[in-house]
Amino acid sequence: MYDIPSQPYEMTAAEAAALIADRKMAVSELTESCLERIAHRDSTVKAWICVDPDLALRKARELEKVLIHSGSRGPLHGLPFGVKDMIDTADMPTTNNSTIYDGFQPGTNANIVRNIIGTGGFVLGKTDTVEFAAGGRKALTRHPQDNSRTPGGSSSGSGAAVGDMQVPLAIGTQTGGSHIRPASFNGIYALKPTHNSVSWSGARQYSPTLDTLGWYGRSPDDLMLVARAFRMWNMEKPPAIKIKDLKIGVARTANWDKCAPETVAAIERAAKLLADQGATVFDLDMPEGCADMTEAQKTISAAEGIVQFLPEYLENYHLLHSDFRLRVENSKGVTPESYLEAVNLAALCRMRFDALFGTALDAVLTPSALGEAPQNPDATTGDAIMNSMWTLLHAPCVNIPGAKGPNDLPVGVTLAGPRLGDARLLAISKAVAPILDPGLRVSA
Amino acid sequence: MYDIPSQPYEMTAAEAAALIADRKMAVSELTESCLERIAHRDSTVKAWICVDPDLALRKARELEKVLIHSGSRGPLHGLPFGVKDMIDTADMPTTNNSTIYDGFQPGTNANIVRNIIGTGGFVLGKTDTVEFAAGGRKALTRHPQDNSRTPGGSSSGSGAAVGDMQVPLAIGTQTGGSHIRPASFNGIYALKPTHNSVSWSGARQYSPTLDTLGWYGRSPDDLMLVARAFRMWNMEKPPAIKIKDLKIGVARTANWDKCAPETVAAIERAAKLLADQGATVFDLDMPEGCADMTEAQKTISAAEGIVQFLPEYLENYHLLHSDFRLRVENSKGVTPESYLEAVNLAALCRMRFDALFGTALDAVLTPSALGEAPQNPDATTGDAIMNSMWTLLHAPCVNIPGAKGPNDLPVGVTLAGPRLGDARLLAISKAVAPILDPGLRVSA
Repeated sequence: MYDIPSQPYEMTAAEAAALIADRKMAVSELTESCLERIAHRDSTVKAWICVDPDLALRKARELEKVLIHSGSRGPLHGLPFGVKDMIDTADMPTTNNSTIYDGFQPGTNANIVRNIIGTGGFVLGKTDTVEFAAGGRKALTRHPQDNSRTPGGSSSGSGAAVGDMQVPLAIGTQTGGSHIRPASFNGIYALKPTHNSVSWSGARQYSPTLDTLGWYGRSPDDLMLVARAFRMWNMEKPPAIKIKDLKIGVARTANWDKCAPETVAAIERAAKLLADQGATVFDLDMPEGCADMTEAQKTISAAEGIVQFLPEYLENYHLLHSDFRLRVENSKGVTPESYLEAVNLAALCRMRFDALFGTALDAVLTPSALGEAPQNPDATTGDAIMNSMWTLLHAPCVNIPGAKGPNDLPVGVTLAGPRLGDARLLAISKAVAPILDPGLRVSA
Repeated sequence: MYDIPSQPYEMTAAEAAALIADRKMAVSELTESCLERIAHRDSTVKAWICVDPDLALRKARELEKVLIHSGSRGPLHGLPFGVKDMIDTADMPTTNNSTIYDGFQPGTNANIVRNIIGTGGFVLGKTDTVEFAAGGRKALTRHPQDNSRTPGGSSSGSGAAVGDMQVPLAIGTQTGGSHIRPASFNGIYALKPTHNSVSWSGARQYSPTLDTLGWYGRSPDDLMLVARAFRMWNMEKPPAIKIKDLKIGVARTANWDKCAPETVAAIERAAKLLADQGATVFDLDMPEGCADMTEAQKTISAAEGIVQFLPEYLENYHLLHSDFRLRVENSKGVTPESYLEAVNLAALCRMRFDALFGTALDAVLTPSALGEAPQNPDATTGDAIMNSMWTLLHAPCVNIPGAKGPNDLPVGVTLAGPRLGDARLLAISKAVAPILDPGLRVSA
């Protein structure tokens, strides 16, 4: 029934969840396999800030007992997660990659961690992040396929850990392009859901208008599994999708001319493959105002960052990275007027963008990053410019891998949908993925 | 220079801050006086969930030492705060008034508490709240002037504690009308600042689009002091205000016909007093769509509450108050479509409302509550209907006391301004308050 890979760590989350639920694999088998993979790879990839193998195995054995004696806790039963290290965990430190929080251990789990645990999953470890998921210090994480390159950021460790098959699922966040870009660089699947459709409480806030939690997996089913566990709208009955009925609009956006040839090629490739299967693929003009959203996203994050980093500025001025001191001191010179102009523009563009969907449009195809993962990981995690508009639109986005660049590294594409259209977008992604992604493991 | 009251607890925060900064009063004098007042009154008013006198006095003495040896930490140096018990405090429990959190003590301070401490203030104690500041259990707090009445909610304890002079300043929150309404009932000053202008992190989230932190004091100067400490926009140079130049629009709003006679009278009284002083006072028609915002606020809080109470639902179903189980189960039947319609309406109304201001309008005068504090405090904390539109507009609101109802209880009025116009609105409130509020203590 299942095409079971040689090692449990190679399984997608959906495959592993099914085997665990069917009692064909013990929770600890999967956990042990992931821990072995981590032990083998961590000195190279450096995805993790903290992994406690004994704790992980205790959690796994406990979940095995629960399964046997009480039944499944939910869709995520037995699945280990990597959690970005700016999301609070009660039994592991949460450093925000800031010297201020070195060794800091919050007393509580963030809401997303509680949702994971409440539906049967558990935290395998904490993954490295750009400082406060915002700026300052980079993660130490390296691209799993090329140590001279970044895995992307700010969700550097989460993206690399899933891409390197060290854990089947991981949580990331996006304020600019921090979630989708690492997915593109690491050749994995990612959902950045509609803004505010998952509780942010207990994650490090940077810009409330933008901050969005998301998750990584290695198949569309993995993304759907988590969305179902979190009870997102309409996930109990995803719509049936026929490729030939799909209307896909290609949004090259105002930053298209900055894209590397491999990104241009990845979009053209996806458009052609989908058209070959009968989908209607056309060039989409983004609504009025969208061309100004890249700048608006910067204005909003700058203005809201003043507020969110004030506590550290007051308490720990000398330990706070100068990047954040400058933010609190409004070094970008945003004003109430420029901030509100950006907020208002975003609200109008959200309405205009949502209104495109319906009989004329099912999903938008757009780049996930400028190109392959760049070199010099101490200096860059790549550019958020292809993602930040979508973050500000609050639109759900899925990264789909499949294309490669000149260095044989992954280049993803994004499918985007209207706000709260996550369930339909995931169903479309599931239908589309086998066409675009030759590496996709197909179960059943 | 200062008209010093007989007891420190009677001072406004601004008076006390000035005396402390001038070394004319020790921090511990003020703290001891507040603690004595609490000891005298708490069995009647029941504003506090937790007060630790020894801890408070240790903090006061430490702040006195800091002042002497290192100088002031900021505008709030030496001032004690009441903090609503759904805002995390590291050295006191945070119960959310939920049995799930009975005795729960988070390891960290919420950002607003860190801002208070970082600018010289401290937490005197935690104040009782409606469960999760949302529904379920009421606070035990009673109206300080009439034990058969509610002090309002959900910021019940914070409003009553400041109204009863047990503490000069307190933090409340508003998702519907939870901050301004208690101010009206307790005859105190309140600022509900522009949404997202103070960091929410570490406070219990209910509806991120609506949740707004605010503060109570007993003069406009008190409100300005805290706004300055929190570095809100333009607080370093509040504009000069001349009453005769002010253009005040009276917004009776779509719910005007539900107001009790004392609220109607309070608005007419304020309009007349301001006109008598030369202000231009006129009837303001609220922009298109505003009449539907009361309903939109309910839809948004219902939809976002599903997400925010899911962790407790998954973890502690049987301990979670049925009110919140029903919320997670979407008992109000909101849909993605109705939610987005409400979100879009709000965005448009915010733009239209802000656009009213400028040469034609300086501030809006509107009711703070339907009437005096109602009886039967176990059953009601009053109605949010006069506040919820302003919460959803993200507009700054100041409650100004001064009028009385048929039972000689306070009836406040609200002055509202455009988003991020907080500094100007506070300056207008300071100019207007001596005209409207015969009980205002006037310093200097």
